[in-house]
Amino acid sequence: MRNVAIAGAGMTRFAKYQDRGLKELTDEAVSAALESSGIDKSGLQVAVVGNAAAGLITGQECIRAQVVLREMGIDKIPMVNTENACASSSTAFQIAWLYVASGLYDVALAVGVEKMFVQDKAKSMAAFSGAVDVEQLRELMSNLKPPSEKKAGKESGAGTKRSLFMDIYGAAARAHMKRYGTTKEHYARIAVKNHNNGSLNPNAQYQERYTLEEILASPMVSEPLTRLMCSPIGDGAAATVLVSEEKAKQITTNPVWVKGSAIVSGADNRGEVGSATGRAAQRAFEMAGMTPRDINVIELHDATAPAELMIYEELGLCEEGEGGKLIDEGATEIGGRLPVNTSGGLLAKGHPVGATGIAQIYEIWLQLRGEAGGRQVAGAKVGLTENGGGMVRGEAAATTVHILAK
Amino acid sequence: MRNVAIAGAGMTRFAKYQDRGLKELTDEAVSAALESSGIDKSGLQVAVVGNAAAGLITGQECIRAQVVLREMGIDKIPMVNTENACASSSTAFQIAWLYVASGLYDVALAVGVEKMFVQDKAKSMAAFSGAVDVEQLRELMSNLKPPSEKKAGKESGAGTKRSLFMDIYGAAARAHMKRYGTTKEHYARIAVKNHNNGSLNPNAQYQERYTLEEILASPMVSEPLTRLMCSPIGDGAAATVLVSEEKAKQITTNPVWVKGSAIVSGADNRGEVGSATGRAAQRAFEMAGMTPRDINVIELHDATAPAELMIYEELGLCEEGEGGKLIDEGATEIGGRLPVNTSGGLLAKGHPVGATGIAQIYEIWLQLRGEAGGRQVAGAKVGLTENGGGMVRGEAAATTVHILAK
Repeated sequence: MRNVAIAGAGMTRFAKYQDRGLKELTDEAVSAALESSGIDKSGLQVAVVGNAAAGLITGQECIRAQVVLREMGIDKIPMVNTENACASSSTAFQIAWLYVASGLYDVALAVGVEKMFVQDKAKSMAAFSGAVDVEQLRELMSNLKPPSEKKAGKESGAGTKRSLFMDIYGAAARAHMKRYGTTKEHYARIAVKNHNNGSLNPNAQYQERYTLEEILASPMVSEPLTRLMCSPIGDGAAATVLVSEEKAKQITTNPVWVKGSAIVSGADNRGEVGSATGRAAQRAFEMAGMTPRDINVIELHDATAPAELMIYEELGLCEEGEGGKLIDEGATEIGGRLPVNTSGGLLAKGHPVGATGIAQIYEIWLQLRGEAGGRQVAGAKVGLTENGGGMVRGEAAATTVHILAK
Repeated sequence: MRNVAIAGAGMTRFAKYQDRGLKELTDEAVSAALESSGIDKSGLQVAVVGNAAAGLITGQECIRAQVVLREMGIDKIPMVNTENACASSSTAFQIAWLYVASGLYDVALAVGVEKMFVQDKAKSMAAFSGAVDVEQLRELMSNLKPPSEKKAGKESGAGTKRSLFMDIYGAAARAHMKRYGTTKEHYARIAVKNHNNGSLNPNAQYQERYTLEEILASPMVSEPLTRLMCSPIGDGAAATVLVSEEKAKQITTNPVWVKGSAIVSGADNRGEVGSATGRAAQRAFEMAGMTPRDINVIELHDATAPAELMIYEELGLCEEGEGGKLIDEGATEIGGRLPVNTSGGLLAKGHPVGATGIAQIYEIWLQLRGEAGGRQVAGAKVGLTENGGGMVRGEAAATTVHILAK
């Protein structure tokens, strides 16, 4: 397989946009990616677009790539639409990488785009139902409420599909506390960190800092998750231009290389949400010929603050059960030995689901080029992204890991 | 890039199933494909699933592959969901081919599955809206009615999204008649041929023969298209197992090789429906190092009978405007010099949209292995499939061409 470089990348600010749809968001992100690559849109040879929710929210299915790209004058080239729930665009990225790595094309565009915020709030929520087995949805929703709420017969702010996911994350967070002595404060400190980081990122949806007390005092979503420990609903797009090594040498002096790319599904030994991460990471590290020690900066899928802590362990950044120690040490803060979610992560940068995977790659691309401004990690040479999506029978539907290097 | 073989293939009968959903249909097709390949499901390394309509019909979005494959015990491997409207599964096939051709994996599963027939007829119809730019849908529907109906202010059996497509096909058919002297009878003879072929195919949704008179006398859908010249609504699944050359040599003495694979979007010089076909064919022929003269059997996207005639020309089987001559000669009948749609095509075999692309490949696979029974093309060594999907601004959204050889 051929070496593949990211020659350009771009994203919109993530936000709740009153008046911008998929087309406008795509145009902004793709135009920025093309501009930074120095490649004109006429130079694109293939495009892959990841989107998760447009079908249920806007009725636009089937040919989202063609609809959004045609609008900005990109057409006639092969276009592929991918879905993998919240991992839709990291999946698109792998396919675009494969088009170039295989030798079939030299220049590929990968896009993630999502419009979740609409006036009809029920529609925004409906989008989450597609990310699980719809036939099993009812069953899951009754089984996964926190024990206290089951007992009291209380409705967990629930009834929505989004809360299903938050209840699952809540249950996993409580299990980790019980088994390893992890505390609410560990989780809250992750939220403090990511909101701090978001305040340094002009593309973040939320750019405010919060104290530990403020995080803990925000409204309870699903014990121990407070609202500020959960990723918000939002809109946005992100794009990358992938090129062959030969092409990269012609057009850029500052390429970022794709060293490892892995997608997996299903649970593994832990049998908990996100546990596919370990196998995805293992495969990506093997492909890159690297270990966690080689990584300088990470963007990972902090759909909730506790998820970030558990993913530390699944990625092999520490032993199982020792995620709390990394927090105690400040290891994953900017300035720590292995900064995580410098962008603000899903918690603060936002989580327009189909756009998240490539937005993570965008952040690492910035970091490796030394262009991350006030949140720059000094000397970052190798970065990793981890992006998870969907659930089937309580197991992760799709988890992707990418390793990128200068 | 590495050589890739189809080691196994399978499909369900296409039909309106009262009581079978995506999971059951997938299970049957995938089990048949695995059995014919001699590979156990535990030997699969990656899976790509194409589906167009489940989101709008059942609410199942995002992770259809994981939902349908997990049910039959296939999990933990990478899974990717693709959409490209009616070309969703030929797109899945290209991605699966790429996974093997690139060297990333040795065994890949490609699946197409669709459940269109539901009691709520409006839902079946709603699925078509996702295959165009939903923002432009209204505009298109008013512009594309036949002139006679516009004049009379008559509603063209319309108001549905399906009829939008039929009106477009009708307009293209009339334009061809006017420009080249093609007749209604030419179109009707294609329907006669494909229904004849379907009567020889146990997997065809409709297995009845019709006379020319019966085709012409069936209810008018959009001048000159009668109902028997249009593909029906239906359900079904089709699957293939793709393997590397090395693996193929270990497990089969009867492989079918993927020689060319192309996806394109947008219109070309003709500016009519399906005209991307010419560019897709050109690319696939170049990749295979072949010309139309090398082809012995073809499955193409006869969403309507006139579409088949126009695709003859776009594929380069004859000069532009001379499709009618091929019909006059009987060239594309079984027993003719270049049989087309031996399976019955979309008209008779049926058109569960996301399943169609791989079902076409299944038919060519049977033909090249000499296993097509009463519809076998003697000595077939090279086959071609053409599959089109969706529309943006009146241009084809996705057209795929695959060339397969013994």
